[in-house]
Amino acid sequence: MSSSIEVARTADEARRAAISPAQMDVEVRLIENVLRSFEQCTEPRTKQLMQSLVRHLHAFIREVRLTEAEWERSIEFLTAVGHITDDRRQEFILLSDVLGASMQTINVNNEAVGNATEATVFGPFFVDDAPLIANGGDIAGAGVGQPCWVEGSVKDVEGNAIPNARIEVWEADEDGFYDVQYTDDRVSGRAHLFSDEAGSYNFWGLTPTPYPIPHDGPVGKMLEATGRSPMRASHLHFMVTAPGFRTLVTHIFVRGDELIKSDTVFGVKDSLVKDFDHQLPGTPVPDGRELEDSDWSRVRFDIVLAPEVA
Amino acid sequence: MSSSIEVARTADEARRAAISPAQMDVEVRLIENVLRSFEQCTEPRTKQLMQSLVRHLHAFIREVRLTEAEWERSIEFLTAVGHITDDRRQEFILLSDVLGASMQTINVNNEAVGNATEATVFGPFFVDDAPLIANGGDIAGAGVGQPCWVEGSVKDVEGNAIPNARIEVWEADEDGFYDVQYTDDRVSGRAHLFSDEAGSYNFWGLTPTPYPIPHDGPVGKMLEATGRSPMRASHLHFMVTAPGFRTLVTHIFVRGDELIKSDTVFGVKDSLVKDFDHQLPGTPVPDGRELEDSDWSRVRFDIVLAPEVA
Repeated sequence: MSSSIEVARTADEARRAAISPAQMDVEVRLIENVLRSFEQCTEPRTKQLMQSLVRHLHAFIREVRLTEAEWERSIEFLTAVGHITDDRRQEFILLSDVLGASMQTINVNNEAVGNATEATVFGPFFVDDAPLIANGGDIAGAGVGQPCWVEGSVKDVEGNAIPNARIEVWEADEDGFYDVQYTDDRVSGRAHLFSDEAGSYNFWGLTPTPYPIPHDGPVGKMLEATGRSPMRASHLHFMVTAPGFRTLVTHIFVRGDELIKSDTVFGVKDSLVKDFDHQLPGTPVPDGRELEDSDWSRVRFDIVLAPEVA
Repeated sequence: MSSSIEVARTADEARRAAISPAQMDVEVRLIENVLRSFEQCTEPRTKQLMQSLVRHLHAFIREVRLTEAEWERSIEFLTAVGHITDDRRQEFILLSDVLGASMQTINVNNEAVGNATEATVFGPFFVDDAPLIANGGDIAGAGVGQPCWVEGSVKDVEGNAIPNARIEVWEADEDGFYDVQYTDDRVSGRAHLFSDEAGSYNFWGLTPTPYPIPHDGPVGKMLEATGRSPMRASHLHFMVTAPGFRTLVTHIFVRGDELIKSDTVFGVKDSLVKDFDHQLPGTPVPDGRELEDSDWSRVRFDIVLAPEVA
């Protein structure tokens, strides 16, 4: 079985840790026993996942020579993550995010196809039934912040317009909170719209501002203990779907934001950093909206969808 | 940094998975970014643990090419494990146990020293304040089962008796339940005692019987989905402490139990399998206890403690 290669490799690691041959035998035999326990599994993919997980988990424990006290703290940590998680807060997703596991999963499933727009993390704040707006509509609702005109196109990798693509957009307000983080059941800073016959779309949102991920729980404590910031780079979420195309989950980021280099969930990709052009109060707006003496910004995001993988 | 070796290695794995150089670059750069995010950590061991965890976690995701749906199911699974865990039930320990992670941690921290008794998993059913009994006392309490006379000695690796060693013992009743699994606050099937001046000890317990780990939760579902049994081989728990010696956490197992080869938490070691000699009703007992017409068993377990590591 292919796992024997992996067992041998972890044995190599153990050798580097200078343990005795007898001890190495004890450790490797245990891994073989655990792998064997999944041999009856009749679903090949599940078997593959469990056996690979076992190999990597044991490789970790052996490589760091995990102490029993560290094991206990790990159990306590996971328990705390589980206990703070509820319908409104998903601390396991947060944990996956700050370890880069969410982003790596996105990477693995969204290999670059020509000039198709790159994907990034989904995050925990999407909701399924965001209101429909027409092009030119406003997603902000009760959300407070600087108005931002967002416009662009949806095309395929050959440059053909994709009409009627469904575009979900969501973002935090200028205080750094999504609507679902408030307790008043508001719906704001989110909507869906469709690209028009020419594949174009536009809407009013808010200029994105940086915010911390929820950091009053165990994941926040872990970040603090390891000298990491809980801040996310400013961004606006997109999810774009159209029949025959790979669903695109992504953000756009604000060029010049100093958090671009240290986004705590590793979501930034160079191609997703966009110019949010600042506009002085009184600058004519694209659609004649009355902004009074507010300044605003505008950004262009041209989306390219990869073909659906058969 | 040493992590570059590991990153290169995971890149090798990706190459085997036949991904493009550009895609490999995306995946490896992410790992490097995540590793770099822990570089500010001022506690070297924490930094080592987090960076090693990141490398192995990402190696797993990349090796299996984890799908987004599988990632979501993993989040849901961990959430369910967290939500069933409370003061009386620790599903994360159970998860660690059935993946062999608990046993591997025990292995890593209890390297064989001469003929010292081997360690095995602690399990979730130990409690701190079990009653004190004298040698010859009975740990069963309200627990029902076949009486079992347990005797042995506590010695160091040179064969010198260790008087006054603290011996904690705990076990399930014949229905397969520990006292803490009942809701009536009973204390049964557990006690502590001390070795005498000659290093000897003995007590009455119950002949161990096989039982399933709690399998009505997410870990039980995982075992079922992978064709694994939730059964543990019959066993009696020991924890032995004495000043100057490494704490021994172990079990003894019943020779002839068919579950010896498939213990679901991988706790069995050959040296811990003991003869529990069946005794017919009326066979004289070692201490004159009145057993009426009950059959009983007896077992000898000579314990050797390793010296404490400085």
